[in-house]
Amino acid sequence: MSANQSRPPPLPRPRVAAMRGYAPGEQPAPGVRVVKLNTNECPYAPSPRVAQALREFDVDSLRRYPQPMADRFRASAAALYGLRTEQVLAGNGSDDILNIILRAWLDPGDALACPAPTYSLYPVLAQIHGARMVPVPWADDWRLPVDALCATGARLTIVANPNAPSGTLVPIAELRALAVRHDGLLVIDEAYVEFADESALALLAELPNVLLSRTLSKSYGLAGLRFGYALGDARVIAELAKVKDSYNCDALSVAAAVAAIEDQDYARQMWARVRAERARLATTLTQRGCEVIPSQANFLFVRPPGGDGAGLYAALKARGVLVRHFAEPALADRVRITVGTPEENDVLLRALP
Amino acid sequence: MSANQSRPPPLPRPRVAAMRGYAPGEQPAPGVRVVKLNTNECPYAPSPRVAQALREFDVDSLRRYPQPMADRFRASAAALYGLRTEQVLAGNGSDDILNIILRAWLDPGDALACPAPTYSLYPVLAQIHGARMVPVPWADDWRLPVDALCATGARLTIVANPNAPSGTLVPIAELRALAVRHDGLLVIDEAYVEFADESALALLAELPNVLLSRTLSKSYGLAGLRFGYALGDARVIAELAKVKDSYNCDALSVAAAVAAIEDQDYARQMWARVRAERARLATTLTQRGCEVIPSQANFLFVRPPGGDGAGLYAALKARGVLVRHFAEPALADRVRITVGTPEENDVLLRALP
Repeated sequence: MSANQSRPPPLPRPRVAAMRGYAPGEQPAPGVRVVKLNTNECPYAPSPRVAQALREFDVDSLRRYPQPMADRFRASAAALYGLRTEQVLAGNGSDDILNIILRAWLDPGDALACPAPTYSLYPVLAQIHGARMVPVPWADDWRLPVDALCATGARLTIVANPNAPSGTLVPIAELRALAVRHDGLLVIDEAYVEFADESALALLAELPNVLLSRTLSKSYGLAGLRFGYALGDARVIAELAKVKDSYNCDALSVAAAVAAIEDQDYARQMWARVRAERARLATTLTQRGCEVIPSQANFLFVRPPGGDGAGLYAALKARGVLVRHFAEPALADRVRITVGTPEENDVLLRALP
Repeated sequence: MSANQSRPPPLPRPRVAAMRGYAPGEQPAPGVRVVKLNTNECPYAPSPRVAQALREFDVDSLRRYPQPMADRFRASAAALYGLRTEQVLAGNGSDDILNIILRAWLDPGDALACPAPTYSLYPVLAQIHGARMVPVPWADDWRLPVDALCATGARLTIVANPNAPSGTLVPIAELRALAVRHDGLLVIDEAYVEFADESALALLAELPNVLLSRTLSKSYGLAGLRFGYALGDARVIAELAKVKDSYNCDALSVAAAVAAIEDQDYARQMWARVRAERARLATTLTQRGCEVIPSQANFLFVRPPGGDGAGLYAALKARGVLVRHFAEPALADRVRITVGTPEENDVLLRALP
């Protein structure tokens, strides 16, 4: 009998042994044909300039380490947003950015406050880092609970804006009111902001405790590339950089990301198409008796007549359309539907029970 | 006066505010011509199959999230090493792998033991995670201090094998002896193992507390790609997977990494060339009066006559050859020289004072 059979494996931290981990949205097996409207991916391919940048990339140069801070991307993003290079931090997806933020900001037991319900990754990150998750219920109609968030005294507050899975956007004036009164760091997760009417970007000029988290996953059609970034005060960015992996962005991804954000014309056309389809889908679903929360993101959070979210999810799946259902009680009467191409949305509408 | 000027930035964790962060090896500015032998990159370009895989990659598919566990890479690596897929974890460089290991295994205050001196990233990771670094001096001639390492009672021990910056390899039998007596997880960082005479791979079949960390950075000429992996017991891999970023490997990198490890013929030729040049360089440096530690890695740790490591570093830099010098007292009499191409090594030898 080998030692492997007789000896138990070593044990991780108790909190890790006890946790289940984040469950990414389901992905159909390769070759399975579905209309995939469950993980908020962009229905359009990335800019042709991304393919061009990859074609022109000198593959032999991969033998060298990449720039530790992804300087080419920082320069492009700074120019695009009218910031200084030192105000940009690049990451391996916004997952990496959020992880860096928690690693830099929260000691074990420190509070992480979020309006709730929100993106389901935040509590998982809090659990991993040993932080204390303080969920603060949204005010009526998904308005920002400014007083209650301030009252937590949290060192770190994250507001997804637009929020997931509601798709709602809180006015920047309310975020400003929160930031002014907030002693800690206020992270505004703008993963979906390119589909919304406004961004909190202007707050960076006046409030050093505001940090924006962005991603190319949805708005640039690059979920497979893993590229996110943070925008904020240069002193905050410098602290975050201390705890990131030394070379957290690979050279290929940086080249692709630069090509993508430098093609704003292409990106704006995609965003306009998604917004137009979002409006059509919301109108049609409402006509069909659904309750649709006004969305500023690339998805809709939809309550079918009767409120059987799980049933709608299953019925659509049986007809080859994948949407997302959340089992927790406050969300279970709805499904989240990513806005697809006009053709995909037509398939969804025809598949509705 | 704006609020930004009147208001101080928010503060990170005290331990982060106090730290300086890991200093990656210096990179020459773009356009500066140097012979770069300071960061242990591979002197040869990656396999032509990497370029082919990137050319054939469907860029439009980047709009989709990648496979969360990089299944294609896992399957290739498992086949290559005679393991099950569940014994492989892929990461965004071995930095990501090491970070995942600390995140999963160490509560604040837990001990991380390493023979010392070793890879300078480990203490930085311990500091970030709030772990207690327990350096255990190598026994004479860079032999593994098995008793002293066991006596630490650490939940996690990392042994770089070959070690950096010494380049020395401890026999697998000694690692086995340590693992058998070690209650915690023993990570063997095999970043340079492809240049060595043996790997600890065989230990995985009998010891569930052994985990290997690997990277494509040096041995496959892909430092710019950021691709690392861990091999170990499937139950340990499953715990690590809980705390990794949901999609930690991008789809392009996975395609490139698969192409690289599936071209073992090309890789073995590179490794043989590096080993041959390592031997030539060591012999010549010894003839020139240097003391050269026998190396099993793709670099040499060299004491010049007189032991002025900083002086040698500066003299070589002035002549366009970049090597690495470590300021800490135990290492300061030497420089670490990456084995380059025959031509680069000739330039180095001519540049010696």
